[in-house]
Amino acid sequence: MKTGQLRYDIDEFIKNLTSQLVSWRRKFHQYPEIGWMEYVTTYYIAKELESMDYKLAIGTDALMTKQRMGIPKQQLLKESEERARRKGVPPNYMTKLAGGHTGLVAQWDTGRPGKHIALRFDIDALPIEEVYDHAHLPVKEGFQSQNQGWMHACGHDGHIAIGLGLAHMIKHFQDSLSGRFTLLFQPAEEGGRGALPMVKNGWLDDVDEFISGHIGIHSLSIGEVAATTNQFLASSKINVTFKGRAAHAGVEPEKGQNALLACATASLQLQGISRHSGGTTRINIGKLEAGSGRNIIADQGRMEIETRGENDELDQYMFNEAKRMIHATGDMYGVQTKMEVVGHAIDGTCDNEWVKRVEKVASQSKCIKNVHPVLPLGASEDVTYMMKKVQNNGGKATYLIFGTPLVNGHHHQAFDFDERVLPIAVEVIGRLIIYLQDEK
Amino acid sequence: MKTGQLRYDIDEFIKNLTSQLVSWRRKFHQYPEIGWMEYVTTYYIAKELESMDYKLAIGTDALMTKQRMGIPKQQLLKESEERARRKGVPPNYMTKLAGGHTGLVAQWDTGRPGKHIALRFDIDALPIEEVYDHAHLPVKEGFQSQNQGWMHACGHDGHIAIGLGLAHMIKHFQDSLSGRFTLLFQPAEEGGRGALPMVKNGWLDDVDEFISGHIGIHSLSIGEVAATTNQFLASSKINVTFKGRAAHAGVEPEKGQNALLACATASLQLQGISRHSGGTTRINIGKLEAGSGRNIIADQGRMEIETRGENDELDQYMFNEAKRMIHATGDMYGVQTKMEVVGHAIDGTCDNEWVKRVEKVASQSKCIKNVHPVLPLGASEDVTYMMKKVQNNGGKATYLIFGTPLVNGHHHQAFDFDERVLPIAVEVIGRLIIYLQDEK
Amino acid sequence: MKTGQLRYDIDEFIKNLTSQLVSWRRKFHQYPEIGWMEYVTTYYIAKELESMDYKLAIGTDALMTKQRMGIPKQQLLKESEERARRKGVPPNYMTKLAGGHTGLVAQWDTGRPGKHIALRFDIDALPIEEVYDHAHLPVKEGFQSQNQGWMHACGHDGHIAIGLGLAHMIKHFQDSLSGRFTLLFQPAEEGGRGALPMVKNGWLDDVDEFISGHIGIHSLSIGEVAATTNQFLASSKINVTFKGRAAHAGVEPEKGQNALLACATASLQLQGISRHSGGTTRINIGKLEAGSGRNIIADQGRMEIETRGENDELDQYMFNEAKRMIHATGDMYGVQTKMEVVGHAIDGTCDNEWVKRVEKVASQSKCIKNVHPVLPLGASEDVTYMMKKVQNNGGKATYLIFGTPLVNGHHHQAFDFDERVLPIAVEVIGRLIIYLQDEK
Amino acid sequence: MKTGQLRYDIDEFIKNLTSQLVSWRRKFHQYPEIGWMEYVTTYYIAKELESMDYKLAIGTDALMTKQRMGIPKQQLLKESEERARRKGVPPNYMTKLAGGHTGLVAQWDTGRPGKHIALRFDIDALPIEEVYDHAHLPVKEGFQSQNQGWMHACGHDGHIAIGLGLAHMIKHFQDSLSGRFTLLFQPAEEGGRGALPMVKNGWLDDVDEFISGHIGIHSLSIGEVAATTNQFLASSKINVTFKGRAAHAGVEPEKGQNALLACATASLQLQGISRHSGGTTRINIGKLEAGSGRNIIADQGRMEIETRGENDELDQYMFNEAKRMIHATGDMYGVQTKMEVVGHAIDGTCDNEWVKRVEKVASQSKCIKNVHPVLPLGASEDVTYMMKKVQNNGGKATYLIFGTPLVNGHHHQAFDFDERVLPIAVEVIGRLIIYLQDEK
Repeated sequence: MKTGQLRYDIDEFIKNLTSQLVSWRRKFHQYPEIGWMEYVTTYYIAKELESMDYKLAIGTDALMTKQRMGIPKQQLLKESEERARRKGVPPNYMTKLAGGHTGLVAQWDTGRPGKHIALRFDIDALPIEEVYDHAHLPVKEGFQSQNQGWMHACGHDGHIAIGLGLAHMIKHFQDSLSGRFTLLFQPAEEGGRGALPMVKNGWLDDVDEFISGHIGIHSLSIGEVAATTNQFLASSKINVTFKGRAAHAGVEPEKGQNALLACATASLQLQGISRHSGGTTRINIGKLEAGSGRNIIADQGRMEIETRGENDELDQYMFNEAKRMIHATGDMYGVQTKMEVVGHAIDGTCDNEWVKRVEKVASQSKCIKNVHPVLPLGASEDVTYMMKKVQNNGGKATYLIFGTPLVNGHHHQAFDFDERVLPIAVEVIGRLIIYLQDEK
Repeated sequence: MKTGQLRYDIDEFIKNLTSQLVSWRRKFHQYPEIGWMEYVTTYYIAKELESMDYKLAIGTDALMTKQRMGIPKQQLLKESEERARRKGVPPNYMTKLAGGHTGLVAQWDTGRPGKHIALRFDIDALPIEEVYDHAHLPVKEGFQSQNQGWMHACGHDGHIAIGLGLAHMIKHFQDSLSGRFTLLFQPAEEGGRGALPMVKNGWLDDVDEFISGHIGIHSLSIGEVAATTNQFLASSKINVTFKGRAAHAGVEPEKGQNALLACATASLQLQGISRHSGGTTRINIGKLEAGSGRNIIADQGRMEIETRGENDELDQYMFNEAKRMIHATGDMYGVQTKMEVVGHAIDGTCDNEWVKRVEKVASQSKCIKNVHPVLPLGASEDVTYMMKKVQNNGGKATYLIFGTPLVNGHHHQAFDFDERVLPIAVEVIGRLIIYLQDEK
Repeated sequence: MKTGQLRYDIDEFIKNLTSQLVSWRRKFHQYPEIGWMEYVTTYYIAKELESMDYKLAIGTDALMTKQRMGIPKQQLLKESEERARRKGVPPNYMTKLAGGHTGLVAQWDTGRPGKHIALRFDIDALPIEEVYDHAHLPVKEGFQSQNQGWMHACGHDGHIAIGLGLAHMIKHFQDSLSGRFTLLFQPAEEGGRGALPMVKNGWLDDVDEFISGHIGIHSLSIGEVAATTNQFLASSKINVTFKGRAAHAGVEPEKGQNALLACATASLQLQGISRHSGGTTRINIGKLEAGSGRNIIADQGRMEIETRGENDELDQYMFNEAKRMIHATGDMYGVQTKMEVVGHAIDGTCDNEWVKRVEKVASQSKCIKNVHPVLPLGASEDVTYMMKKVQNNGGKATYLIFGTPLVNGHHHQAFDFDERVLPIAVEVIGRLIIYLQDEK
Repeated sequence: MKTGQLRYDIDEFIKNLTSQLVSWRRKFHQYPEIGWMEYVTTYYIAKELESMDYKLAIGTDALMTKQRMGIPKQQLLKESEERARRKGVPPNYMTKLAGGHTGLVAQWDTGRPGKHIALRFDIDALPIEEVYDHAHLPVKEGFQSQNQGWMHACGHDGHIAIGLGLAHMIKHFQDSLSGRFTLLFQPAEEGGRGALPMVKNGWLDDVDEFISGHIGIHSLSIGEVAATTNQFLASSKINVTFKGRAAHAGVEPEKGQNALLACATASLQLQGISRHSGGTTRINIGKLEAGSGRNIIADQGRMEIETRGENDELDQYMFNEAKRMIHATGDMYGVQTKMEVVGHAIDGTCDNEWVKRVEKVASQSKCIKNVHPVLPLGASEDVTYMMKKVQNNGGKATYLIFGTPLVNGHHHQAFDFDERVLPIAVEVIGRLIIYLQDEK
């Protein structure tokens, strides 16, 4: 097949795929599931890929059980699994997925020698209650979250659609391709929990080219693309538990050991960790639950915390400061302190080669308006574990950013993006794959 | 009937009732229900009283809907009602009780002119997870809580048993009695929510003698009784909600309005309200829930708080201080503040007449070892609304304390009492009722 | 001398003394000196007593050096001593007083066998800046503090005047008296520092009757007197120092160990120590100084704290809580913590005999309108060390309260009292002394 | 004079000047004075410049009274002035300098047409107590601070020496120079207070070339120089006062309005202002003084605060957050709040021309080992007011950094630098001045 023809065929393929991309995105938006509980999500993805004859690895085949962090409580898992069964996920799937073994890996082997290219898409939602407002597109168009309290507020619903689109594209253009393709549909990206267990199962060990990316991040126009990303913040996700002693708050308050006040104190102290001259740092106490009733001195308190740093050293600084403060807070109130690391992301760097590659590809496309050589992420992404693995073995990795206007920021309860970004993302990555076939 | 014979008959009656009292207590202990959700509890009490031909008032007949405070969320009510149905509470009961209309009033009219005597028993449990330890009697004997996370940790299970025992006693000795009897099985004492709606329905309007009381409080020996109680702390129960703005904690933390830190700050500030030279005060932040996820700036926070004071003025001082601090905290973080009073108890005084009465009764009993004229409560009890109503109309009221050793304090997850206190409480109140028939 | 005549003579004596009492009070008010630096004050008292032939003990003769707590820094002492020299205190006095050996003990021996009666007056001022307002009597009448930043804001200027008045009275009526008299002009009452070193020098060892007292406390009318006082709060006075590491706040804030934030945290935590069901407790962080400059992370912080309790156990509870919190705060910020007890007062009880005695004396007086058997202090007074010493040896002790209206509370910068209380206090104590001569 | 000869003469001149530079530096190190109180410092500088026939502007001639911020309290000024008089500053100087009119401007006019070159040196010390340790050079060599509690801990003693050295150099090479020279010896750089009042007096209005700089900052080797500096942090210096109500902490704590706790709360809240995704921010509460005595509820509290931002907008964000929090804290405690801006620095940029210039000059020197085109400051410097003024009128400005190893960071109580940096700084600036004569 000649390049000129292929280029035309891609335009045609993308054009035909567009309504399907929107349809997928809206379907997943309606059924958001949070990390390690993407049972229905994984099943829907699997069914789609099976119909295209991809070879699938699910459950412990996809990821290493022990490397998973931040697994939800048993009861929550059970409830989600029950819901998935009611939603129609068949027993043979549930057996593999049960206990938080979500996500999957799909492989396509052209049978011809060539590069091993890996693509990664994250699939989890967030514990955010979606806004009910008719100005919010999912509400207006009737595809808002049906799982109360959970929401695709970071665009991973779009990422799944892009991944499925690319799976179709690889199959469609299989005769023009050589080498092997690995598509990783990663669970539990939020909290930095799902990448490492996939890496540990060896999927990235011999990858030559690695592509992942994100829609949005910055509020750009449709057609803007960043070829690489920097400012991946290293991050530690920490759960803290204080255990004190209950007492009647009126009759003998002095007998209590107040775990609620320990949480409150730790929250304010952590928020006050000094800025660092070495670069960007972050701290957030995202969730706090303490106490059982109004007239009881709280004997239990629990916090979900994260630290971040522009590099691993800065995150370590934040972590060490937090650790000292949390233990001192326990001593302050005479309560027992437990501190557990439940997620982790490292820093990361994209390879410069991708700037030239994306610029080349952009020159072939009618839809890509502007290529930024690099844009900052300013957040954490455990994709860095995959990128570093590929790079350590001599491969090249990048993390693209696909521009779309954002009415509200990521993780906002009215987050939404312009769905026109979906076909553009498929086109950019698709054209990159084809470009890589012949790259000199 | 001669007094000597009656005295002997009471001993005999109490002796025969004892195993039944223990059996009732253990049954209710196994099925604890928290305030406004005592559906099964109310039904069991009702069935027992119906079998004795008491005239019952249930639902809106028993209490005034609008006067209720601190009603649980709709969803919690629904879940409890569903559970009650599964537990066998029939539809005709559920219709009356639904929506948090628990508790009941039982009446017995001797048909003979005489005093109107009212007895009050509180029936609600606490949101405490019962300890699972074989040294804990309910575990050892297999009657621990079957409602996970809820527990009769204040002895109200015993109070119900005492109330049922007294209902039997009144029926048994009906020929020796004159006047009328009203037995109030009050819901939602914890949080100071259930007494006022019963008062407002008029049950206490023409009461001559009012008796309530509590087992335990102080760790006394079996056989010790306090004829009156002082130090009823006035109390305000307050729910506070902060509403801020969510934002991605890594990408743009400055966009958030942090409701979790508002909760933490308010907690520490409230805890620091200055002591008052006028007397005892208390503050407790018993419950705090804020935030939805680790990497999101929390946009929601909620606290359950109570203030107390040795008298109404001191509670008002605490309330005013808390109010100012809570609103200033909202301003501190630029979040919206909502403050709702969900319960209230006033101060109270027992009438001195009861000291002589209880001493008289004690002299007739083999089981009462020691009468304290007065003991301090040091806590809040919305029974004070009933007492004050009775006293305002010229009646006399008291609140007895029945001694029992306590291994752990009230509201402790291993709270327990010595069941020998049950027959003693029935005997003291029963003999008081009979004594009041002939009092000069 | 007959009793009737004596009673008349006392009236006459007091009447003549009144303008002198006011004059003394105003002189001392103009020259307030804080604890252990009452150099000029002691000298003025000494001169007055020497002129009456009292036998004086000054310096280490009056108090035991090692038992003193909370001695000001060397430099402050030096400055005060220099000022005293400039004010005319001669070298022979300064030699004895130097280094914080202020206060004195004056003895009068009638040479006749009889009781040993001790009277105690505290002489120190407070580090409060007196208000400059013409509505404030000392300003209006031109006798406001000449020592900037220091003020007699607790009425000890009045106590000195009363003490000198009684010294005159004892001398004047010496022929009607028998036994011995010891007048203790105690330094450093504020902070609970001066009583114990006097006790340790043996002055109270064989005392039969001990009288001290306070003007004001409650806002009563002139002529009201309390025969005894209760609610002496036990108290611990604590200095806390945090030592961290300075760093440039802009260039490398992470290098600092912030002693200022340690002080802030400790302050809020201490303020939040739980109330105790056992009775009244108090905590106050009265002074905080931290940091050296705006753009430097503070490496030094210092706090002056006090705890109180209705009895020694409750103060110990507060002290223990404070200790744990202070050390945990040091750990929180990685700073060195030093905690030093610089003052202490124990609880105390007055002997009931004094109620009858004061009532008797009141019946002889035209000026005493009302005798309260007992009034609460609600504060700390190290006079309790003296009282307990006397009581342990079989003597009787009381602490009188002399009513006066108070426009502003004690320790307020516009504190003032009605000077008519001065002759009444002299009369009450003077008549008590005379009454004790003949008591059966 | 030929360039070759001149280059040689400079080497010779610098060599001869070196011991004098060290001697000046040590003299000023011994007599550190903090901002607006550099009376002796200014006098010493003036005497030296007068002896070289510079034309001096002192007092209100040098700076605009009203534009000064953060003037110390009257009493502190008076004490410093008294000390200066004792130290020998004659009345004609004191008259001009009194009331915080320190610093001076020295002018040299060659009489030949040419550029107007301005040099700026800051002269103030810090309120830091110098360490007494024989490993610390000033102690070892006996030139440690003689003003207890004050210290040249930022190297401005070195800056003064460099300024005097350059004054000598200009005079020495006057025949090779044309145009005019203005040397600004600026007071009160710490706190960002002294630059603007000099700018407002017009000294920078027609300046063509502006040079200032700093020794140290980064721990570099002797001989390293940065031609320009970036990351000037915009900064606001704020004094906060809380005024509450005093009360006796034992007797009636509820009557107090606690200004000390307001300071503590504000400190912790300010420290917790959220990081900003837009770039570097800083906050420091550098000094806190509250309360008057241990047993008094504190009615006064005072804090010295600074905010910083990588640019003016980020500093404004910090300032606005701080403002809201400080006022909310006042409301929290019911105390009056006063917030006063006492210093300000803006962001700033050096002109790129200087990189080429310094590299040129370095090529002529034996001592300059390495030229960094740019190094970050990471701190605030009110020199930015001068730079911006010059640049707005078309002039060029830079801020050099002169490398020296630092055992301890700036503002550390054992801060010191390697004195070999002094002749290098004189040489770099001196050669720049000569280079600018002929620049094409």
